[in-house]
Amino acid sequence: MAKGRIVSEFTELKNISLLGSTGSIGRSTLSVIEKFPDRFRAVALAAGNNVKLLEKQVRRFKPVMVSIADEKSAENLKNRCAGLKLRIFSGVEGMIHVAAAEEADITVSAVVGTAGLVPTIAAIRAGKDIALANKEVLVTAGEVVMAESRAKGVTIFPVDSEHSAIFQCMRAGANKDIRKLILTASGGPFRGYSKKDMAKVTLTQALHHPNWSMGKKITIDSATLMNKGLEVIEARWLFDIAPEMIKVLVHPQSIIHSMVEYHDGAVVAQLGMPDMKGPIAYALSYPERLPDVSPALDLASVGTLTFEEPDRSRFPCLDYAYVALRAGGTMPAVLSAANEVAVKYFLEEKIRYGDIARVIKTTMDAHTPTPVKTVEEALKADLWARQEAEKIITSKLK
Amino acid sequence: MAKGRIVSEFTELKNISLLGSTGSIGRSTLSVIEKFPDRFRAVALAAGNNVKLLEKQVRRFKPVMVSIADEKSAENLKNRCAGLKLRIFSGVEGMIHVAAAEEADITVSAVVGTAGLVPTIAAIRAGKDIALANKEVLVTAGEVVMAESRAKGVTIFPVDSEHSAIFQCMRAGANKDIRKLILTASGGPFRGYSKKDMAKVTLTQALHHPNWSMGKKITIDSATLMNKGLEVIEARWLFDIAPEMIKVLVHPQSIIHSMVEYHDGAVVAQLGMPDMKGPIAYALSYPERLPDVSPALDLASVGTLTFEEPDRSRFPCLDYAYVALRAGGTMPAVLSAANEVAVKYFLEEKIRYGDIARVIKTTMDAHTPTPVKTVEEALKADLWARQEAEKIITSKLK
Repeated sequence: MAKGRIVSEFTELKNISLLGSTGSIGRSTLSVIEKFPDRFRAVALAAGNNVKLLEKQVRRFKPVMVSIADEKSAENLKNRCAGLKLRIFSGVEGMIHVAAAEEADITVSAVVGTAGLVPTIAAIRAGKDIALANKEVLVTAGEVVMAESRAKGVTIFPVDSEHSAIFQCMRAGANKDIRKLILTASGGPFRGYSKKDMAKVTLTQALHHPNWSMGKKITIDSATLMNKGLEVIEARWLFDIAPEMIKVLVHPQSIIHSMVEYHDGAVVAQLGMPDMKGPIAYALSYPERLPDVSPALDLASVGTLTFEEPDRSRFPCLDYAYVALRAGGTMPAVLSAANEVAVKYFLEEKIRYGDIARVIKTTMDAHTPTPVKTVEEALKADLWARQEAEKIITSKLK
Repeated sequence: MAKGRIVSEFTELKNISLLGSTGSIGRSTLSVIEKFPDRFRAVALAAGNNVKLLEKQVRRFKPVMVSIADEKSAENLKNRCAGLKLRIFSGVEGMIHVAAAEEADITVSAVVGTAGLVPTIAAIRAGKDIALANKEVLVTAGEVVMAESRAKGVTIFPVDSEHSAIFQCMRAGANKDIRKLILTASGGPFRGYSKKDMAKVTLTQALHHPNWSMGKKITIDSATLMNKGLEVIEARWLFDIAPEMIKVLVHPQSIIHSMVEYHDGAVVAQLGMPDMKGPIAYALSYPERLPDVSPALDLASVGTLTFEEPDRSRFPCLDYAYVALRAGGTMPAVLSAANEVAVKYFLEEKIRYGDIARVIKTTMDAHTPTPVKTVEEALKADLWARQEAEKIITSKLK
């Protein structure tokens, strides 16, 4: 049983390390693993500080190791799991252990924010394929991450529904024949709002996404369209496509998950009910498709699909992402870090919705981008942007 | 220069035999050939009796041989083309010469109706790949034609926009993972008509297709949805998919050309502006895609796509196709032949729109299907159905 891989006559068991097991994507990943016990095994889990849920996951999935954010939670978990054959780690080091677990064939990177970058790089360096649900990994250090992946012969499978859709549609043609990637966006809860209405929106409104049930940070990013901006940057690196070839199209029903336009004029689209289990399962079983993962789509019941250009004046965050991509180097890391800080303050109801874009812009304006050759350089820019954004917010709050 | 194939350092010139060069698909095929002179050459053309247009095509494309339906037209063409280095044939024998032309790499089968079957089989037997625009070839003798293709190692590339779409979407997954093929249908000019209104429709109305400019026979077939029924049968053979896995979905905008639903719940669709040059070029250049073949699709301008189940009571022809497919053997040939006769009479304004379905049903009811092991058996059933349909119509007209 070399490297934890069991090859039976019929199927191949894939051993999975899951970073962010108690989050939204993490829980969906475990439900996919649960549905296909002869295909997948969760060998390593890393979580934040939800000890209770992690304990439940440990008892259900019997991983060989887990990691939890802080030491106190780790001690708590050790007491709860006394008697189980389980290695328990904590902190960034612990997450790196889980990410690069010897037993794993593929690492699902589903920790939200820049915190996902270091363990993801550790997994790549350990030769693990990556199922990537974390946007900031590629936004902050896309060029470096892709170069490391190529050097290690590691495949990065997208887990975002949009990138999974594009990944699927790209099979219908050669990369050289692609004219455009078209990322669809629901438009979020404020699509139809006037500028005046948008000045007054509350946290509760922003957290109410029309189609998807997701974590809080990504839900806010969907409301500002920053989520789509980050996806544009992610797509640029994931698919090695020039920024000007990546377009965003608002499609409120979220049925077409994204599209590839080929240079002959053909457009290939991937559709489905909004459900993260589809992209997760596809990333884990590619190129095979497993049965009955997502609910079936009935287009006659859906009835109508609509499309419109994004309104760049009401949703400036989308443009900031293109600006950051064109500026290059450290600028996308700065964009993403400033956004993360601003969203944190918004979730704490310390700043207003409209402040998110202002904080990002002011942070970017204060930054002169430099090339990113290493993860450390990206993280340095990330840290600078966090401090700068905090400074901007704090001076405003005084 | 073995077998007429020129391989340069950069591109490969493909020599094309075109059956039905003066028809709608034939003319579009020639415009694709004209656009890519370093990729395609028209080496052989076969046409009906449009001598004037065929002469024009000969002077423009310089094929080595042509064939025209009747001998008188052939004589006329010989006079017009005196001095040109050109072999001129006529009749079915002539069309077979063109279909199996030694110089050709691929034969475009774009003759409408059962007349396309014999030359297409001749091309397959001569080892030519087929770009298939004729529906009746597979409807009448699908099992035999596919068996001959496999035996000869010949590929049949679909030229119908729907089947081309499915062919493209099937690249995004393994055949074993397919749950459904979803053929889209515009619904034709009578989609919104009541049963009462449909009883009164005229030839002019039936010839007015909302989205596509096509030949007359196929335009009427679109109005009755028989076109979609024939496509269901065609898809069954072309993609080796069970009839119950092939669905029809009405999509009036004709932007999604068809879809494949995989068993994980993902649906892959091919979209584009309604334009036959896309599918034609794809069939000729597969797996490559040539640049700027079809006009670009702007979904934000299109705005809205809608979907509905087909109304099987107002469009009984669609059900007749499924009935014929389930009955098997000679029944699809009978369906198609009876339809061809009925449409001919309708185009001559000798029967009414509603009579088309009645003639088909009555002919099918009078038929006991037998297995089809050879093209001859299929053609015998076809001939029987023609005579039967004529008889039904004539007795009615008395």
